[in-house]
Amino acid sequence: MDIHTLTTEIARQAKAAARVMGRLSTAAKNDWLLHSADLITNERESICEANQRDLKEGKERGLSSAMLDRLALTDKRIVEMTVALREIAALPDPVAEITGVVPRPSGIFVGKMRVPIGVIGVIYESRPNVTVDAAALCLKAGNAVVLRGGSEAFHSNRALAETLRAACKGTDVPPDAIGFVDTTDREAVRLLLTMDDSVDMVVPRGGKPLVKLVSETAKMPVLKHYDGNCHVYVDEDADFEKALRICMNAKVQRPGVCNAAETFLIHESVAESLLPRLGKALLEKGVEIRGCPTTCQLIPEAKPATDQDWDEEYLDLIVAIRVVASFDEALDHIARHSSSHTEAIVTENHTRAMRFLREVDSSSVMVNASTRFSDGGEYGLGAEIGISTNKLHARGPVGLEGLTTQKFIVFGDGQIRE
Amino acid sequence: MDIHTLTTEIARQAKAAARVMGRLSTAAKNDWLLHSADLITNERESICEANQRDLKEGKERGLSSAMLDRLALTDKRIVEMTVALREIAALPDPVAEITGVVPRPSGIFVGKMRVPIGVIGVIYESRPNVTVDAAALCLKAGNAVVLRGGSEAFHSNRALAETLRAACKGTDVPPDAIGFVDTTDREAVRLLLTMDDSVDMVVPRGGKPLVKLVSETAKMPVLKHYDGNCHVYVDEDADFEKALRICMNAKVQRPGVCNAAETFLIHESVAESLLPRLGKALLEKGVEIRGCPTTCQLIPEAKPATDQDWDEEYLDLIVAIRVVASFDEALDHIARHSSSHTEAIVTENHTRAMRFLREVDSSSVMVNASTRFSDGGEYGLGAEIGISTNKLHARGPVGLEGLTTQKFIVFGDGQIRE
Repeated sequence: MDIHTLTTEIARQAKAAARVMGRLSTAAKNDWLLHSADLITNERESICEANQRDLKEGKERGLSSAMLDRLALTDKRIVEMTVALREIAALPDPVAEITGVVPRPSGIFVGKMRVPIGVIGVIYESRPNVTVDAAALCLKAGNAVVLRGGSEAFHSNRALAETLRAACKGTDVPPDAIGFVDTTDREAVRLLLTMDDSVDMVVPRGGKPLVKLVSETAKMPVLKHYDGNCHVYVDEDADFEKALRICMNAKVQRPGVCNAAETFLIHESVAESLLPRLGKALLEKGVEIRGCPTTCQLIPEAKPATDQDWDEEYLDLIVAIRVVASFDEALDHIARHSSSHTEAIVTENHTRAMRFLREVDSSSVMVNASTRFSDGGEYGLGAEIGISTNKLHARGPVGLEGLTTQKFIVFGDGQIRE
Repeated sequence: MDIHTLTTEIARQAKAAARVMGRLSTAAKNDWLLHSADLITNERESICEANQRDLKEGKERGLSSAMLDRLALTDKRIVEMTVALREIAALPDPVAEITGVVPRPSGIFVGKMRVPIGVIGVIYESRPNVTVDAAALCLKAGNAVVLRGGSEAFHSNRALAETLRAACKGTDVPPDAIGFVDTTDREAVRLLLTMDDSVDMVVPRGGKPLVKLVSETAKMPVLKHYDGNCHVYVDEDADFEKALRICMNAKVQRPGVCNAAETFLIHESVAESLLPRLGKALLEKGVEIRGCPTTCQLIPEAKPATDQDWDEEYLDLIVAIRVVASFDEALDHIARHSSSHTEAIVTENHTRAMRFLREVDSSSVMVNASTRFSDGGEYGLGAEIGISTNKLHARGPVGLEGLTTQKFIVFGDGQIRE
């Protein structure tokens, strides 16, 4: 089958399967999730064999050891996948929730019903567990999924997708609801991204080049995640211990992730007392400090920050620190440099806390908490398909609800419009 | 100023003004709305003079009388604009609404806050009142707007936009929150649609070619409206009087609008009794009927429908009628031919009513009510910026809420992630 026919066929079958998925009961979807967990356990040997093939080819192609590590399916990772499936089965089903039904003067009742989006394309790299996580989340929310993983994990992804499709047997979930683009030809991705008549939304999961490619090519909406240049602002009325604790946690607890802080903004009235202590704590953890002139005075080990530092997502043990003359200067800095992911204020002042919450235009805005909390699990969403830096539809951590939409419903009794 | 500098400058100024808009109180925004209504009343002579210039140029360029009519600003239309402004002032402000704040095991509280989108571009045709309606809705929802009307209404739109900007005097609304692309050069539209760093969403209002152009060019999300191929399905358990009343109202009350019905699907068990009566009523109102073979048997005046008829949005006194053998056949027909705008079922059967609501994938789905109710005013949204046929963000009639989005907010007390 040529690549165009193959891709069109997968998308078409997924669209037909999405209609079936939309009307399934929660029990039917959970049946499949639990059955999938069992089948992955049973089939772990053949899944690991496929993974070995990827690893062997990867080594031959000279993949880095970090990449090979991400690719490897260990027993622990297989168990983690089955745990994720069971957790998603335990999550409440968002589909068919009816809200806000109100009577109107005409006599009709108007409300909204939560419904699946339809067909969701997921384009991802490296880690084969995305095959399972993404399919489970999309299907639990009543959608069909079309999966397209990286070529380096092709055999692993195919083995997992085949297991998920096989798990449909004896359940009401149609196998075509788990579409798998069974080729490593990159043209298939480009084709898929033009099929906005059958694919309703696409989720890229991977590095910035992948996200950029998908965003620029896709004709359908893209649920995407760009930068996480997150800020902690320490206000003049900050509690010192909270400020130190939050700054340190936001920077060093896990510096390589998107919700780690990259810049601290410190109000000048607390800089002299806070910065030496904060500087010492950061240096002890091996953090490189790039500071404004005042910061460099107060922390002699700090290097002068360049203009570029304020826009940088280090994802590393590096932090930029700037002393600001006012709350408004902090807001201006954030408006100019933030990537609108997550920002936190440390303050005991109620008015500034509430102004910060309202005026900072980011997907998550926090008072007296570490930016590291910006996470689907911490927010209680259960599993997450990703963290969206889009402004529309879903913003911030995206769980099952972000894989659904709402339609208007009207209950009448024969009403007509006059 | 060259066209690129001009457009960039308007977008940049709107972006700066959007930050101010986002923190304004409801009272401040209403001040401007009411002040605008007064100023339009005071300035009606100069506004009408500008309109006369458009009408004169339009006549010279040979515009149709229908177009000239849409363009004309009569006293009545000026009053209607001021009424709209006052109505929008009276609507509840959606901004800063906090919902769903819940405690998490970590001790943080997580919820959502409704916030403006930012800068909204509105690209429209003909009717100058869109200048006022669109600006009023966007600003009430805390956004800045960049307006770009059709060249045929350029002088009218400019006079109205200048009045809206002048009305900022003495209020807290910054004039740059009402951006007006002060040129008829079409290149400005193309440029604006690439400025996704300053314009967050764009709303095309006009005919299909405009919507298509904007959708294909825009790099930012487009809140758009395509076809309205709406269906009424008359079930085997339909109440006859309701069926007749709803079908007639959906087709003939105002055939030229998007929520008018274009196709009736009739269950075969009621076709024989219903269709002759329905046919007679339709013919009396001058409706042309295009039917399936059974319909043509039961309504001798009906013409045979072609395959194309099932996909047609007539926007006219024409209706396609098809007799179906089952409820599922009706669902299949709708899934295949509907434009996902509005569909209605007429039935007394509860199970099928609920299945129809859930399984029909349209922006509005109705039981025993005319499709003509699919409207922001009828739904209680107040004014509407349009009816969205998008699946994501806003679906169906879009009022103030559709011009906002939500972000996560976190209240902590010094919590860090372990």
